[in-house]
Amino acid sequence: MNSPIKYELIKESSETKARLGKIHTPHGEIETPIFMPVGTRATVKAMTPEELKEINAQIILSNTYHLYLKPGHDIVEEAGGLHKFMNWDRPILTDSGGFQVFSLGNMRKINEDGVEFKSHIDGSKHFITPEKSIEIQNALGSDIMMAFDECVSYPSDWHYVKDSMERTTRWAKRCKDANKNPDKQAIFGIIQGGMYKDLREQSARELLELDFPGYAVGGLSVGEPADILMQVLDYTVPLMPADKPRYFMGAGSPDYLIELAIRGIDMADCVLPTRIARNGTVMTSRGKVVIRNAKHKRDFTPLDPECSCYACKNYSKAYIRHLFNVDEILGSRLATIHNLHFLIKLMEDLRESIREDRVLEFRRDFYLKYGGFDYLGKLDNYRL
Amino acid sequence: MNSPIKYELIKESSETKARLGKIHTPHGEIETPIFMPVGTRATVKAMTPEELKEINAQIILSNTYHLYLKPGHDIVEEAGGLHKFMNWDRPILTDSGGFQVFSLGNMRKINEDGVEFKSHIDGSKHFITPEKSIEIQNALGSDIMMAFDECVSYPSDWHYVKDSMERTTRWAKRCKDANKNPDKQAIFGIIQGGMYKDLREQSARELLELDFPGYAVGGLSVGEPADILMQVLDYTVPLMPADKPRYFMGAGSPDYLIELAIRGIDMADCVLPTRIARNGTVMTSRGKVVIRNAKHKRDFTPLDPECSCYACKNYSKAYIRHLFNVDEILGSRLATIHNLHFLIKLMEDLRESIREDRVLEFRRDFYLKYGGFDYLGKLDNYRL
Ligand SMILES: [Zn+2]
Ligand SMILES: [Zn+2]
Repeated sequence: MNSPIKYELIKESSETKARLGKIHTPHGEIETPIFMPVGTRATVKAMTPEELKEINAQIILSNTYHLYLKPGHDIVEEAGGLHKFMNWDRPILTDSGGFQVFSLGNMRKINEDGVEFKSHIDGSKHFITPEKSIEIQNALGSDIMMAFDECVSYPSDWHYVKDSMERTTRWAKRCKDANKNPDKQAIFGIIQGGMYKDLREQSARELLELDFPGYAVGGLSVGEPADILMQVLDYTVPLMPADKPRYFMGAGSPDYLIELAIRGIDMADCVLPTRIARNGTVMTSRGKVVIRNAKHKRDFTPLDPECSCYACKNYSKAYIRHLFNVDEILGSRLATIHNLHFLIKLMEDLRESIREDRVLEFRRDFYLKYGGFDYLGKLDNYRL
Repeated sequence: MNSPIKYELIKESSETKARLGKIHTPHGEIETPIFMPVGTRATVKAMTPEELKEINAQIILSNTYHLYLKPGHDIVEEAGGLHKFMNWDRPILTDSGGFQVFSLGNMRKINEDGVEFKSHIDGSKHFITPEKSIEIQNALGSDIMMAFDECVSYPSDWHYVKDSMERTTRWAKRCKDANKNPDKQAIFGIIQGGMYKDLREQSARELLELDFPGYAVGGLSVGEPADILMQVLDYTVPLMPADKPRYFMGAGSPDYLIELAIRGIDMADCVLPTRIARNGTVMTSRGKVVIRNAKHKRDFTPLDPECSCYACKNYSKAYIRHLFNVDEILGSRLATIHNLHFLIKLMEDLRESIREDRVLEFRRDFYLKYGGFDYLGKLDNYRL
């Protein structure tokens, strides 16, 4: 196998399933577990690539569906690929477009071949197949492409989930066959099966036969309660190969990132930290801070006194609150820098705790300051 | 005189009234002629202070009226002044608030003491006097404060302009007396008098008696034709002291900046370059470019091939067009960096041409590439 993506296991936690690793990609190495900022439309909202590097972002995610519609993957390809188009020379992961297309609800129709859908922008009709998704992702030139899958909603009937999951597996095979650039661009398979253990097992078993260089757990974070999510993860992650990266699609709060990592997840992404930043909410070592709140009017301390990001080193809550109050772009910029820095630093500290085999201590100390994780009370494993 | 602001004349152009100089301020030196970016609400829209320094911004302007309303000058003062509040350690000039208050039209009433007005934000009533304007500017801690003046609209009746101008002069005296921090904060007087030569002469004569460390030409750029503006400037600038800086309020297009400088103006400011940037219009060595235009869809060249700014070094028109098309903040950021860099570099090149006594050649070459200045056909002096 000459996969462009290789996972190197560095250390396993003795107390949990957390693991320290390194993913080798054509655009450099990634230390895991990691949080990946999302750059939906070929830009991580409000940030430059240099600013992302300054906060040690190692890889970013971008969205196939959005780039297909605007500016069009042909234009990105003509520009020399997504890395060159957006001026980012580190690894890029692209999703398959499946999640967005299936989220369109009434505006899409599924058959064995693919999905017909109407653009959320102008209502124009499009048809995406597994082959088309990979054609677009090949044009974008991402290091890690995702197989085109159906992400079923929650709750869903066992029979529906089984049919969908089996089709997703057939699509995964077609994705693999469609990859025109296998030396530089890897495809990750996505394990589906909803909240059903037997279906997750079937999905994993069949996808593993296709020997993808990495696997994602899909179909979670779709509205199910946290304890169900964790249960599914508890039985799904052990089905995934130990010598390949494990990606969880859609988690961006500190507690989830920690809980995923201790269950053996290596990579996660979410728009949450950038979205709430633009709304004026920041994550700090002492919990969330809503910066518009009147109590910060004369607060000349930084967003987070323990943070060393550009925003915290140079600006006060009073100033950033003022920026949000008068709708200035710099407000969104500073809050975004801080939130992404916060999560990236959290994962750095978490990796350090794996290295030193004190993950549970790290987790307890974090929650004691940040505020409890709702789900903790119900946890059987990994008790505080 | 122990004024915190001192002007040093370095060289006079032999062909025009242009002059090369240096303004010494408590926060460092400014080379003139200069364009000053505007940071209305304690932030130059879309920019950080570091980015402003990277494009060699030497001084910025901020608005008393806006900061008085939000966040309130008391909060800025508690923060340690505007420099500290917004993290900018180079010189700051604040306007007096007069221009904004008088722009409110029906929402304000003038008497000898000051102006009563209603906030454009919430309709709340306020009363600003010359003393109040200086009190606010003292709280902000700007290096250069402006005297509180009435900027009359165009056209205005001779009698109205005369009454207003004489009151502005009485207010200038009151401003000077009200300054509580004269060692660190200078006040510039503002010459009014509308489009009437006798009134400009009277205004200059009376204001010069008050011995301000710098003077502005006010009451222009209020809708009058370009040739009238230039005529007024042609007879007003010679009334201003040669050993003090001369400031023109409200010019931000390249042609105006050049025309003002060759008439002996040292400083100018305007929101134009940052405002049009956020609308997707950039100034380039070959004239204006509307970046949303469909013709840039596949244009992988920079905004301006002759520009060395961050945006031009790293991004294509196609990418920046995409950012504007999908309403991404980075689009506004890149266009703003470029436009400010363009004007600041223009003034650097202009200073170099003064130093080398080839201002008219510089001006001709600039217009030949950028596109003509409408007013040039009507010019008596400084013919191309
Ligand atoms: Zn921070
Ligand atoms: Zn440029």
